[in-house]
Amino acid sequence: MNCGEIAKKPAVAITPDKTIEEAAALMAQHRVGLLVIVDRENPKKPIGVVSERDIIRSIAQKIPPTATVDKVGTMHNFVYVYDHDPITAAAKKMRQHNVRHVVVVDKEGNLYGVISIRDLIGEKQVLEILARDWVPTQE
Amino acid sequence: MNCGEIAKKPAVAITPDKTIEEAAALMAQHRVGLLVIVDRENPKKPIGVVSERDIIRSIAQKIPPTATVDKVGTMHNFVYVYDHDPITAAAKKMRQHNVRHVVVVDKEGNLYGVISIRDLIGEKQVLEILARDWVPTQE
Repeated sequence: MNCGEIAKKPAVAITPDKTIEEAAALMAQHRVGLLVIVDRENPKKPIGVVSERDIIRSIAQKIPPTATVDKVGTMHNFVYVYDHDPITAAAKKMRQHNVRHVVVVDKEGNLYGVISIRDLIGEKQVLEILARDWVPTQE
Repeated sequence: MNCGEIAKKPAVAITPDKTIEEAAALMAQHRVGLLVIVDRENPKKPIGVVSERDIIRSIAQKIPPTATVDKVGTMHNFVYVYDHDPITAAAKKMRQHNVRHVVVVDKEGNLYGVISIRDLIGEKQVLEILARDWVPTQE
């Protein structure tokens, strides 16, 4: 089973000029914990991510909710996998980077979807694969 | 393996009179996605929870960050397990209630800890148990 197969739902995308408040509204509406920040000129091109955690941190730092998402998200070096990677790659990257989502891209680097940690415990088959092919993060 | 064994780290608690901003700061500081709201008179007694998602929703609804956490958290009917419950109970409740944390209480109902969804994919042994004892949510 590969990452493309498990990332069934389309990613929720946002452009970097949108505000924290708008990001929060999108997360609440779509019930997702991560938005993919995409290029304004090319909505297929992921250029960053903004997570619930990023927004929580912005509140803790008293950054106004009218600030733009590119100020609080992770730009450029976000965590991703390829659609043809095995699902264990997604689980491993989540552990390694201590994140709950990975962006899935196709071989051209275009946005394919998002895998959340929740997707990994939702199905018996997925759990079986993860248990069988489990590798420690410290290697 | 039971819920008490997997909930190793102490829960991060907050009292209901604290603000959303203070809750966000605690979450960011302790790197957790859920705070347990405890009774002001009895810090062992959980009376609710406030999650990252609750805070995101409050921003989307333009609730000021100076509002108290009891206005945005889940009071009273939060999702919990007992420390002696098998870990599959925690996984099942997360799927059933669509949450990423469960509060762990002891048989007196005192706060024991919190299990996050991340704790469930962190160890090979845990994954093996979850895969073996997996039961569909719709039963």
